[in-house]
Formats: sequence, C-alpha cells, structure tokens
Amino acid sequence: MANNILYAQSGGPTPVINATACGVIETAAKRDDVGHVYAGLNGIFGVLNEEIIDTSLENPEEIAALKHTPGAAFGSCRFKLDDPEKNIAQYKRLFDVFEAHDIRSFLYNGGGDSHDTANKISIASQKLNFPLNCLGLPKTIDNDLAVTDNSPGFGSVAKYIATSVQETARDLLSMCATSTKVFILEVMGRHAGWIAAAAALGQKGPGTAPHLILLPEVSFSPDQFLAQVSHSVREYGNCFIVASEGIRTENGKYFSEQSTHDAFGHEQLGGVAPKLAQLIKSKLGYKYHWGVCDYLQRAACHLASATDAKQAYEIGAKAVELAAKGISNQALIIKRVSNDPYRFEIATTPIMNLANVEQKIPAQYITENGFGVNEACLQYLRPLIQGEHYPTYRDGLPVFANLKAHLVQKKLIPISLSIA
Amino acid sequence: MANNILYAQSGGPTPVINATACGVIETAAKRDDVGHVYAGLNGIFGVLNEEIIDTSLENPEEIAALKHTPGAAFGSCRFKLDDPEKNIAQYKRLFDVFEAHDIRSFLYNGGGDSHDTANKISIASQKLNFPLNCLGLPKTIDNDLAVTDNSPGFGSVAKYIATSVQETARDLLSMCATSTKVFILEVMGRHAGWIAAAAALGQKGPGTAPHLILLPEVSFSPDQFLAQVSHSVREYGNCFIVASEGIRTENGKYFSEQSTHDAFGHEQLGGVAPKLAQLIKSKLGYKYHWGVCDYLQRAACHLASATDAKQAYEIGAKAVELAAKGISNQALIIKRVSNDPYRFEIATTPIMNLANVEQKIPAQYITENGFGVNEACLQYLRPLIQGEHYPTYRDGLPVFANLKAHLVQKKLIPISLSIA
Repeated sequence: MANNILYAQSGGPTPVINATACGVIETAAKRDDVGHVYAGLNGIFGVLNEEIIDTSLENPEEIAALKHTPGAAFGSCRFKLDDPEKNIAQYKRLFDVFEAHDIRSFLYNGGGDSHDTANKISIASQKLNFPLNCLGLPKTIDNDLAVTDNSPGFGSVAKYIATSVQETARDLLSMCATSTKVFILEVMGRHAGWIAAAAALGQKGPGTAPHLILLPEVSFSPDQFLAQVSHSVREYGNCFIVASEGIRTENGKYFSEQSTHDAFGHEQLGGVAPKLAQLIKSKLGYKYHWGVCDYLQRAACHLASATDAKQAYEIGAKAVELAAKGISNQALIIKRVSNDPYRFEIATTPIMNLANVEQKIPAQYITENGFGVNEACLQYLRPLIQGEHYPTYRDGLPVFANLKAHLVQKKLIPISLSIA
Repeated sequence: MANNILYAQSGGPTPVINATACGVIETAAKRDDVGHVYAGLNGIFGVLNEEIIDTSLENPEEIAALKHTPGAAFGSCRFKLDDPEKNIAQYKRLFDVFEAHDIRSFLYNGGGDSHDTANKISIASQKLNFPLNCLGLPKTIDNDLAVTDNSPGFGSVAKYIATSVQETARDLLSMCATSTKVFILEVMGRHAGWIAAAAALGQKGPGTAPHLILLPEVSFSPDQFLAQVSHSVREYGNCFIVASEGIRTENGKYFSEQSTHDAFGHEQLGGVAPKLAQLIKSKLGYKYHWGVCDYLQRAACHLASATDAKQAYEIGAKAVELAAKGISNQALIIKRVSNDPYRFEIATTPIMNLANVEQKIPAQYITENGFGVNEACLQYLRPLIQGEHYPTYRDGLPVFANLKAHLVQKKLIPISLSIA
C-alpha cells in the first residue's frame, strides 16, 4: 500500500505556515514508509473537488524556499464541513478521494475551526471504517489555540509588530515636540489580544512606547482611554497606542462598528485606528497619525522569528513521523520545557482539545489599569521572537517558492461545489 | 578658530536620515580642520532656542548605531523661518547662537521646504556678513526633490513597500478562490507617487500584483477604477491595489481629506484605503481587506536598502569635506553615473535649486491607462532598492542608537519660542 499523505492548509496564512508544509514534504521524502505527499488545492475545499497537488513533482529547491514564502502556498479556505451526523455523504466523498489516491494520512494545518474539522473527519473515519491517520497541525497568528504553549505563526507576527512599534515610536518621538503627538497602530486580534500584547516586548520602562495597549480582553472605556492618552502626552510628550481590532465597549459591541463622523460629517469607514484617532482629535485635539497592519503582519516573512520558523518546521516533520507510526486523532502541540534557557518539545493531545476553544490572555498577565501587559506576560512572550529567519534576496526583493502545483489526474466523477 | 559644525534634521524622518548624521559625525571626528559637530535639538527650532547637542560626548558605538536607527535621532521639526526681508531679527538670533558656539558650518538635512529654509539662511548670512558655510543635505521618502537623481530615504521605503506588496499579494492569492478578492495598500505620497510606483518592482508579468497603482499624478476616476478592479478579479481571481494617499478626483480635491493641516499648510491626509474599499464594496460587492502603512514605511530600518543607506552616509561625509573647504550655498545631490552596473556620485548644486520644487513622476514613466508605471520607470527605480542593510538584533529586536544628547551650556539670553 502506498500510504500517501494528504496535507492541507486552512484559514488565514501565517508567515511560517509554509515552513510546516516544508517540514512535511522534506521529511516524507526521506522516509521509505510513506508515499507521496499530496496537497489540497485551497485546503479541504479542493480535496472535496479532487483537486490535489502532487508535491513530489516540485523542485526540491522550491520546496526548501517554502520556509521563506508568505501566504498559503497551496491555497487555503475557510470552509466548514457539515456535521457528520447530518451529512455523512460529505465524508464519504472525502474518503472516496482518499481511497482513489491511496491516501492513508491526513494532516490538516489550521486553527481552532480547522481542528474542529479535523476532529469531525477523524470521527467519520472511525464511523465509516476508513483507515486514516488524521492529525491536526496547529497554526494561527492569534496565538489563541488551547493546550499548546504557543501557536506557530504567532512568534513571527509578534516580532514584526514589536519591531514596527519600536521603529515607529522613534519616528513619533522625533517629531512630537513640534508636531504629531499620538500614533495609533491597529493590529489583528478579534477575541485574543496576544499580538497587541507582543507590542510591549520593546518597552524600555515607564513612559516608553507603547504607552497604551488596547486588548479585546479588556472592556474599552472611551473616558478612561482619553484620560490615559492625555496623561501620556503631558508626561512623556507623546502617546503611542497599539489597538487590537477586536476591542469592544461596555455594551459588548465592537468599537470599530460604531458610527462616527469626521469634521466634515463624512462617515469614518472601518478600522479601529481611524476611529480612535477621531475620538482623540475631537476630545483632546492632538495631532495624530495612524496605521493599520492588516495582512502585512501575517505575511511579513522578511522579519520572521527563527524560533517560530523552527517550531513550524518541526511540527510538520513530527507529523509525518507520527503518521508513519499509525498515530491518529491527535493534534501536535508545543510544550515549553524551560524558559531560561528556552527549550521546547513537540508533543500531542487529542485533536478535539484544540477544536473551537479560544485561549485569551489570562487576567494575571494584564496590568492593573488594563492598558498593558506585565513582566510575567513578557517572560512568556520573549522566547517566541528570538532569532532572525531571513529570506534570500534577488535584485533587492525576497525570493519566494515558485511552485508548479501540478494537479493529480482526477479519478472520480466530479461533484458540484462552489463557495467563491 | 574652532570651525564647529551645526547639523540639524528637518521634516519627516526617513529610514536613513540618521545614516547621514552618522556620516557627518564620523567624518568630522577624523578631520583636524573642523571642530565639534553640534546637533540642533528638534532641528532649527532648537537652534533658535540655543538647544544644541554636543555629539562629541557620545559613545562612538552609539554614533555607529545611528546607521540603523529610525526617526530623527536629534529630533526634527516642521518650522518655517520667516522671510529675511520681513524678520531679519530671527536670522540675527540664529547667528548669535552660531557665534556663541563658534559655529561656522551649518548642515541642514531635509526636503524641499528645508532647502528653502537653508537658502534663506544662506542669503541672510551674506546680508549680515556672518561667515557661514551653509549646505543642504537632501532627504525625503517621497523622492520628490529636484535636480538630484534620487532622494536619500526613498530607496529604503521603496524596498519596504515593494517587499510588503509581494508578501501580502501571496496572502491574498492563497485565499482569493474562496474569500477576500481585493486588497488595498495605502502608501505615502501627497503629490509625487514614487513610493506607490515602487510597488511595481516585484511585478512578475501581466496579471501579477500589484494589479493597480493609483498615482497622484493621474486624476482619479472612480468609474475607470472600478472597471479595472472588476476586470482584474474576473481575469486573475483577485485585485491588489496600491494607492497613494494624495490621489485626487477630477475636480482637484483629495479623494480622502482630513480636517487638520501641518505647519506648512499642507493638508494632513490618510484614509484613502478605507474609502476605496467602501467604493468597491458598494459598487462591486467584493470582499476586501486594506492596510495603511503610514509611519511604518518611513521608519522601517529593519528592511533598509543598502544602496540608500550608503548614499545617505556619503552625503553626510561629503558635506563635512565641502564645509571644511569653505564651500557654501550648495546642496549635495546624487548623480547617476551609469545604470548597469549602477554607479553614482555625490555632486552639488546651488541650494535654491532644491527649494520648494516637487519632482513628480514624469508622464513617460506612466502606463497608458494611468494605473501603473512602465519598464523605463522600473529601470530607474531598481538600483535604489539593492542590498540589505540589516541592523543588529538583541533579544529578538533591533538595536537602536541610545544617545545621551547632552545639551551644550547656553550662553545667550533665552528667547520665548513655542510651536508645540
């Protein structure tokens, strides 16, 4: 039996999700007990359509370049499988595809929702007696996965944000005596504020940037916020604010969804940062600038954390080993063995433990006034941004993997499936 | 006579303005014919207040670290001197400060407005018979200075934007089959679109990102824009848009306006990306994401261009040589000697040639449909982003110069001056 592996990427990319793919493909290529590594085109969505890429046809140099390639190299999706109790046919289709291509291991690389999907596939495989090694490979920039000490992808975003904050803070500092006094940087994080928290990694002491961090874990009070901004500008000459996109006011509504208007009566569109800027302008009158990182933060391979890239690769490598051993229904996780020096190991936990659980910042990591994180949080975060994982540059720009992405010849009758 | 040098930074920082400062200070330290290098605290504003930093008291290692330090290390300002015809007293004050500290050379590091200021100081020094070597040292991220082939600071921003666009485009590409179809990145550029143009440096051919570049040189037509976006999504599955903050509609109004103005009366812009996103959403219905780089782009020392950093340093070094020779009333410029291989030299031109002139993208560099730049433009741009100028990292974050910034003892009666 061929014992081929199917690897699929799911949800939003991270700077190192392709390092995990690389770990899978390179490790499988070295082993005799596993066959081809196939990759789903656009994740599970493509698998259902029998759109499967044969990674063994790629040049090994391009596979190696995956370690420095942003995006999800094989395409991703946000597609939720139905409940196996209600639509077992969907799972039968999936296993028909697996059977047609001798796939006996399914490695699903995603976040909390994706582990829910992987868990359903694992359950369905038992129910339908389909022999499958089903493993969950964690990734998410939000660092909100349960059980694992940290999520691959987060460390690189943390490094990018902490660096960008320190750089931008120097810019603000150099002009604040005579010009702009407030800078607001909006970062990702709907429910968990780990990315915003990471901005604190460059703080040098009281009064240094970032002066305020707005976490989704803390209810946003405009009055308290304005008091803090005003204090910071008066005491330190400027105020650097890092805001999670997901902050909510006391009524539980997202601050970004609240309707505000600028001085001309134009509605302010989307974005926490411009809304905070408008609030500061109207109530305190300070000159401001703001930035929104959005996709830039989760694609910034040029500033990936070496620790993060290493963990992401090892998750992929270890998954192949486990699949070869016939291990199933497990998610790979990172265990912190020691903090100083930092050491970790890859362990496992049942997939369902990672499904649909959001790991927010615990209260004991948040400062008393709610506008920052404490030293205990920084001690947790610091190891994750260590080391620079630089790409190769050609003609001034980073080189990414250039994949052929050959689709395997289809063997089944096509089904009709569309969500675009 | 001591022949001290006064160096001052003006206007918005660039990723390499401190490399120029480093070039000035390190070069002066090696010469017997110049004295101390003093730096104005917050530019010319601090000089008028006799707030002057003695750079000779800094640790040479910290001075060397300026090559990788964002912001304006000695503080900057957007302060416009009065017309010498109307307020010669302001210039007398300036020269009193120079006289009190044996300053005979004034090196002013700034953009078009700052060269206007330097020109006024040069004229006033002749009028008042104050012996002064007055030199203009160019810097601006916008690349809009006249005469010089390019402006120090621009190459690094160009590299950052071109890299970020390629990274983010991979992210967009990996999700577009099932999710977000449009990404809009807003970059700086009020009147000149060089930064947006640089985004094209990573284009790999037709249909690759960035699909559309919105330049302030081209009148913005919402209808033509929407037709292009729709075409791109239909043909290529997604549309990556890079938008200059300064785009204007046919009536000449900024597409995005804010109510504030800076000290020069320039309207403070920001928010083009969310407005474009709203336009696309309402007319075409595509799912979108957007980002705004703002200060991040001009502070991104972690991705500075080695070519840019070298030019910035040499501008500083050459300025000291010229000042020592008694040259005055000149701005330093970069001359392109050859394109392939790229070679440049530092030359000079009368300061007034750089004052208040904006060098926009010439029409022959812009594609016929107005939504991009052509190969001739890329050939001009490409040499400027070559080479990686990495900072040292400590504990996962870049190390910046940590200056003592000792102020020289004041010798004059204080004046009252405030613009904060």
